[in-house]
Amino acid sequence: MCIGRNYADHIAELNNKAPKQPFFFLKPPSSILLPKAGPVLRPRGVSLHYEVELALVMGKTVRDLDPEDSRGALDAIDAYLLGIDMTARNVQDEAKRKGLPWSIAKGFDTFLPISNIIPKSAIPDPHNAHIWLSVNNEMRQADSTELMLFRIPRQLSDISRVMTLEKGDIVLTGTPKGVGKVGSGDVMRAGMKVDGKEIEEAKIEVE
Amino acid sequence: MCIGRNYADHIAELNNKAPKQPFFFLKPPSSILLPKAGPVLRPRGVSLHYEVELALVMGKTVRDLDPEDSRGALDAIDAYLLGIDMTARNVQDEAKRKGLPWSIAKGFDTFLPISNIIPKSAIPDPHNAHIWLSVNNEMRQADSTELMLFRIPRQLSDISRVMTLEKGDIVLTGTPKGVGKVGSGDVMRAGMKVDGKEIEEAKIEVE
Ligand SMILES: [Mg+2]
Ligand SMILES: [Mg+2]
Ligand SMILES: [Mg+2]
Repeated sequence: MCIGRNYADHIAELNNKAPKQPFFFLKPPSSILLPKAGPVLRPRGVSLHYEVELALVMGKTVRDLDPEDSRGALDAIDAYLLGIDMTARNVQDEAKRKGLPWSIAKGFDTFLPISNIIPKSAIPDPHNAHIWLSVNNEMRQADSTELMLFRIPRQLSDISRVMTLEKGDIVLTGTPKGVGKVGSGDVMRAGMKVDGKEIEEAKIEVE
Repeated sequence: MCIGRNYADHIAELNNKAPKQPFFFLKPPSSILLPKAGPVLRPRGVSLHYEVELALVMGKTVRDLDPEDSRGALDAIDAYLLGIDMTARNVQDEAKRKGLPWSIAKGFDTFLPISNIIPKSAIPDPHNAHIWLSVNNEMRQADSTELMLFRIPRQLSDISRVMTLEKGDIVLTGTPKGVGKVGSGDVMRAGMKVDGKEIEEAKIEVE
């Protein structure tokens, strides 16, 4: 599951409205691209955008979580990942205009490059991590997760009131500003810093 | 995966436009309601609609299927199911208006009641089956799958050019006309006839 529009500056850059509550959508398991598993495939005619996001790996079944239950939310998280929510922006724009689902725009094969598993202990506070993404070594996204509009307990509460979360589910928590286009040959690198130190497991490098 | 707008009369009843190509969306595994597993849960404030659909259970990995490859498409199907694509219609209407994803409207827990597995041999031609749904014994949907706008090979081709289909994936092929609302206490029954005979495995009965 992926949370949409969760950083104010990113909402502004796409001329979207800030949601009154978190909304979310699904990416299929087939969109996952494991570390070193090769390039993101750009379908013909697609304007391909990156969105770096902190991801939660769930450790237990969660249903109807109370939004105030921060302890319960954090307890339900087993580990973290860094993920890039690749988006066919032109396909998404058309879907938005026509009121159609986002599944195609978000769901192509390889549209979810992920890092290795980040042990929970490496991120003492998931609302205080610095996530970044560069293209050809030029920094494009670099912000703290403290800028999230809806914090993780609220996200997990809203999702789990619709869909039961299961062990192993991956939740992407939204992207900060700086999204943009990549073309063939471009190299995306992404990572996460906690207390000023790069987390080795969070590194992504993908064409 | 679920195909949207695949029967002309159903498109007309919801005042939608006929798509030039199949479009599709995802329901999460958590939305599946197995036979006899109890009622569909209606979330508060939700206008709950049924959509009976023939479903395909995939038997192998399918990627970039040729739309003309009818043999390949049928070979990739392992079995069938009958499914009811439950939809929070008011939530979906709002998502359409705002250009938001359909995942919430389509994805609540219990929003995909399914029948038992129907062996492939019971449906010699999936474009020639009669599917029906009644509410409190009043027939509401009853049409032949021959009315599909996009036939199954085309559906599997379009999906598999976006997302690799895997063994065990369930593909819902769209609903005919007659969708409508159900409330608490209503009993939905659904089934399928082939050559005039009810298929035992296809029966669904759910509150
Ligand atoms: Mg969607
Ligand atoms: Mg995103
Ligand atoms: Mg449907």
